[in-house]
Amino acid sequence: MTANTDIDSPLVLAIDLGGTNTPFGIVNESGEIVARGSIPTTGHASVEAWADELHRAVTETTLAAHLTHRLCAIGVGAPCANCNTGCIEAATDLPWSSPIPLEALLKERFDLPVAITNDANAAAAGEMIYGAARGIRNFIMLTLGTGVGGGVVCDGHLLSGSRGFAGELGHIVVRPHSDRRCGCGRTGCLQTFCSAKGVVTTALDMLDSDPRDSELRRVPRQEITARLVSEAAQREDALARDVYRFTGEILGEACAGFAAFTDPEAIVLFGGVARAGSLITTPMRAAFEKHALHLYRDRVGILTSQLDGADTAILGASAIAWQLRDK
Amino acid sequence: MTANTDIDSPLVLAIDLGGTNTPFGIVNESGEIVARGSIPTTGHASVEAWADELHRAVTETTLAAHLTHRLCAIGVGAPCANCNTGCIEAATDLPWSSPIPLEALLKERFDLPVAITNDANAAAAGEMIYGAARGIRNFIMLTLGTGVGGGVVCDGHLLSGSRGFAGELGHIVVRPHSDRRCGCGRTGCLQTFCSAKGVVTTALDMLDSDPRDSELRRVPRQEITARLVSEAAQREDALARDVYRFTGEILGEACAGFAAFTDPEAIVLFGGVARAGSLITTPMRAAFEKHALHLYRDRVGILTSQLDGADTAILGASAIAWQLRDK
Repeated sequence: MTANTDIDSPLVLAIDLGGTNTPFGIVNESGEIVARGSIPTTGHASVEAWADELHRAVTETTLAAHLTHRLCAIGVGAPCANCNTGCIEAATDLPWSSPIPLEALLKERFDLPVAITNDANAAAAGEMIYGAARGIRNFIMLTLGTGVGGGVVCDGHLLSGSRGFAGELGHIVVRPHSDRRCGCGRTGCLQTFCSAKGVVTTALDMLDSDPRDSELRRVPRQEITARLVSEAAQREDALARDVYRFTGEILGEACAGFAAFTDPEAIVLFGGVARAGSLITTPMRAAFEKHALHLYRDRVGILTSQLDGADTAILGASAIAWQLRDK
Repeated sequence: MTANTDIDSPLVLAIDLGGTNTPFGIVNESGEIVARGSIPTTGHASVEAWADELHRAVTETTLAAHLTHRLCAIGVGAPCANCNTGCIEAATDLPWSSPIPLEALLKERFDLPVAITNDANAAAAGEMIYGAARGIRNFIMLTLGTGVGGGVVCDGHLLSGSRGFAGELGHIVVRPHSDRRCGCGRTGCLQTFCSAKGVVTTALDMLDSDPRDSELRRVPRQEITARLVSEAAQREDALARDVYRFTGEILGEACAGFAAFTDPEAIVLFGGVARAGSLITTPMRAAFEKHALHLYRDRVGILTSQLDGADTAILGASAIAWQLRDK
């Protein structure tokens, strides 16, 4: 890709379909997001209604900026997206029942070629091309958002697997005997602990079992969010800090196992929960070193994304859209 | 590679350095082992003494068959082999202290180019080129021998990782609170359950805790081997069958987690313990389906190697030797 800011140069539409929101961006060949918008993922009568609203929002954005005629392809990062079938298969974090023929739904409305990929794989692609993982040929990307997603880059190659479902690391069972039920129907998956929802569950558990005072006790239980807990922790609230310590420890222990799979140079964290920074990376690092096989100790960097969360996913989705255009 | 049986056609020496024995083969370009031999790995005063004996044994074998002048490269599969440094680093299943400058030791004695790789990666390469995994672009190889090794092929590529230590799956911790101590210093690693030694430990534990009679009770405890347990199981000894059922269940549960990493089409088992066949694969399959994320259920084949155990590793080591010759 070469920089091209010509007013007629091509653009792609990149979509980051998340469990809560669907941000999108119009991206040029230099990786600049020249326009952007977002619609909620939830609250629609059907996935068709969501697609209709997305089409409206994108059209408004591109018309306002006089960009519509320049769009040449669409890339989407979405949970459980199968790049081979163009469908979302068995997603547990979306409000619609699977399989969802995402590629067809968007093709109908936009009349453009569409490529979809796993949201975490898109994030890994974005991070590799534009972010913290530039030049790193072996890393594991973990997206700590509504759920936990994974993207694995090994020997410079983003792993896809036999049906595009490589790197579903949020569903690695880390506490088989836990009572935390995952959307997938099993218990003790990594994402029941290290997603935003997992952080809230840990906070509520600690508020119940730990006698210490905490500013979180002044918040109605249903209003506690991962962000609120991290803000309390940043104000030195001891209980809130312990919530993130616990989250980081589980994550570090899990990553110690992941390291044995692909011998990575780095683990890159991204997403809402990762914004807690050292609140989560410090205990994560300690747990990683404690649990890792000697071959991987003191060898694996723990990085947080240098890109704005939504942008990483959008830039990753744009990368797969350009690949489609270039085919 | 093309078949060439000319009496002057080149050959490679392929070595499978295991915890107990070091079998080797002289391999032609068609993947035929034209001569072979083996020395014990244990019982030498030093790694240099082992290398000396290996050199003597190979020389005897090649002189007897008039092959010596045709050798053009050496490939070695060995535990914890780092292909970048040519050393074995921190191996826990070998009788020598690490790092072991294996490449240099063999170069000195044989005066030939030497390439080394992880033993399980060599086995995966052999299985991919000559064995059960021919044509399969996504599989996980598990070598169930003295230890448990792993080789991961994803998107047609044998994963190497940042320092060649990808696929150390025998050291994934499957029972963190177990009292089974692994050679690596941690407890509950997969190989403490699913290696030959793990099978023996399980058998001894069951003989202690289970009141049932078993033909294993007529064998002195220190003479019980994984093979003996599998022979008893094949004669319908109920306790011996339960030893393999337990082993298969742990393996299936572990593989359910592995599947989320690379979305494989198949898991290929190989090594002494895998020779128990359906005694281990039937409970493994059941545990896999029970524990796997829905995306991977009923999708992953469980295969046992179609090659003789030692041959897979030797053919894999030969593949990396030919690569060296062709560089």
